[in-house]
Amino acid sequence: MPSFIGHRCTYRVIYGDTDKMGVVYHANYFRWFEIGRSEMFRDLGLTYKQIEAKGIFLPVSEAFCKFVSPVQYDDFIIIETIIDSADRAGVKFDYIVFDETGETTIAKGYTRHACVNENGRVTRPPAFLKDALAKKGQ
Amino acid sequence: MPSFIGHRCTYRVIYGDTDKMGVVYHANYFRWFEIGRSEMFRDLGLTYKQIEAKGIFLPVSEAFCKFVSPVQYDDFIIIETIIDSADRAGVKFDYIVFDETGETTIAKGYTRHACVNENGRVTRPPAFLKDALAKKGQ
Amino acid sequence: MPSFIGHRCTYRVIYGDTDKMGVVYHANYFRWFEIGRSEMFRDLGLTYKQIEAKGIFLPVSEAFCKFVSPVQYDDFIIIETIIDSADRAGVKFDYIVFDETGETTIAKGYTRHACVNENGRVTRPPAFLKDALAKKGQ
Amino acid sequence: MPSFIGHRCTYRVIYGDTDKMGVVYHANYFRWFEIGRSEMFRDLGLTYKQIEAKGIFLPVSEAFCKFVSPVQYDDFIIIETIIDSADRAGVKFDYIVFDETGETTIAKGYTRHACVNENGRVTRPPAFLKDALAKKGQ
Repeated sequence: MPSFIGHRCTYRVIYGDTDKMGVVYHANYFRWFEIGRSEMFRDLGLTYKQIEAKGIFLPVSEAFCKFVSPVQYDDFIIIETIIDSADRAGVKFDYIVFDETGETTIAKGYTRHACVNENGRVTRPPAFLKDALAKKGQ
Repeated sequence: MPSFIGHRCTYRVIYGDTDKMGVVYHANYFRWFEIGRSEMFRDLGLTYKQIEAKGIFLPVSEAFCKFVSPVQYDDFIIIETIIDSADRAGVKFDYIVFDETGETTIAKGYTRHACVNENGRVTRPPAFLKDALAKKGQ
Repeated sequence: MPSFIGHRCTYRVIYGDTDKMGVVYHANYFRWFEIGRSEMFRDLGLTYKQIEAKGIFLPVSEAFCKFVSPVQYDDFIIIETIIDSADRAGVKFDYIVFDETGETTIAKGYTRHACVNENGRVTRPPAFLKDALAKKGQ
Repeated sequence: MPSFIGHRCTYRVIYGDTDKMGVVYHANYFRWFEIGRSEMFRDLGLTYKQIEAKGIFLPVSEAFCKFVSPVQYDDFIIIETIIDSADRAGVKFDYIVFDETGETTIAKGYTRHACVNENGRVTRPPAFLKDALAKKGQ
């Protein structure tokens, strides 16, 4: 039995997301990953906006996506976000994008984030951030 | 005989600009208008980056585009930018987008810009900006 | 007393929508207009996807937006879409974007759409489309 | 001594590419990778548009980017594209993004592409494609 379930949120594909192949342009999946982690933070009671207000920024240092099956215009998708790790090296999130049934995987990926302070210096994730992320990881 | 000719620059359409109708998604034309006015500023010897470094910002207050004929993937387009006016109300630019021959119009539009200082206050366009724009308008 | 109320839907601003001025990049408002009309069509019981399945396409022929006040990262906005007209010349929608209170206007605009058949020919809006739009306009 | 040098092309960063952190939004780097491989194909004498006209499509099946140092508004960047492999499994390209000096690496990544025919079926890269790619790989 899994001791951990990721956070889920949804998105409706618009025309502006698609390309001439008739499916969503691959770069736009990374926008979905952003939606996923933003909504997960909100659900944890600490929005990313609040994190920035405390002087902590989480710029993306690595991004990866494997495109499993194409997504069409007007499709309703489910973005699952999972906290992979939050250690001295930064924070990593995994993502699984499902179709509207929540059962067929359409993409998988991850993003790594550095933890940076107001002076642009790389820093360890502060306690308030690790505590919020630990809520979900239990 | 025209006493004035606008500034011209070019752009190559990528897959990411298109949508499932097989043509460029309409919102992306406004990115072209930005390319047009940026390159015109550079050509005048005053980049928009330099304008911001002097504490002046030109946020878009109105944008309009008439889409005359569709643009396909890999098309090479010409963006013509014309200084319409620079008065106390702000700055206005007109744009004509041509196909690669420079003879067929594919879109026409304009953007209006407020002139804002570092404190976010609307201000009159300063002399250095009006002088630069006047070079082209002669 | 207004005999007509537009359709309302919502959107949460992501990082990818903003630009270095710290607010939403102007071209992205036209994506919101698309969300507005798509969700209005869905609410009328006729999705834009279904319209295309019947061989009718509504490419944007004109787009306009007046940017009244800036929108920040993580803002929750309300997009109101109003059917302006649907006659032989095509279809026109008006949009008002409100902040989360639904009372402060942050942008206003419109889009005009040609009505095109599967052969790419401009055609009059068919009865099924006019009927659906008339539901809202009563 | 390197027996192989990748193809290089350039791009000027616009406002619409940046986000509120004042740097280019990470998802937009994948647009640069597309520009890189498109211009490399053009340079090989076989544009991607021509590949599609022959009934072959190369949808992205995996995309990765490591963001080494941030890119600012108006920066002029160099995109280097290297053909990594073209075998029965598809095609893979590597990318290095440099600053305008061509010496400082600002990002590195790759994209994998399936090779698909007009019926949407995965197929081996045809001879005309392998021949074109081999020109560069010699």
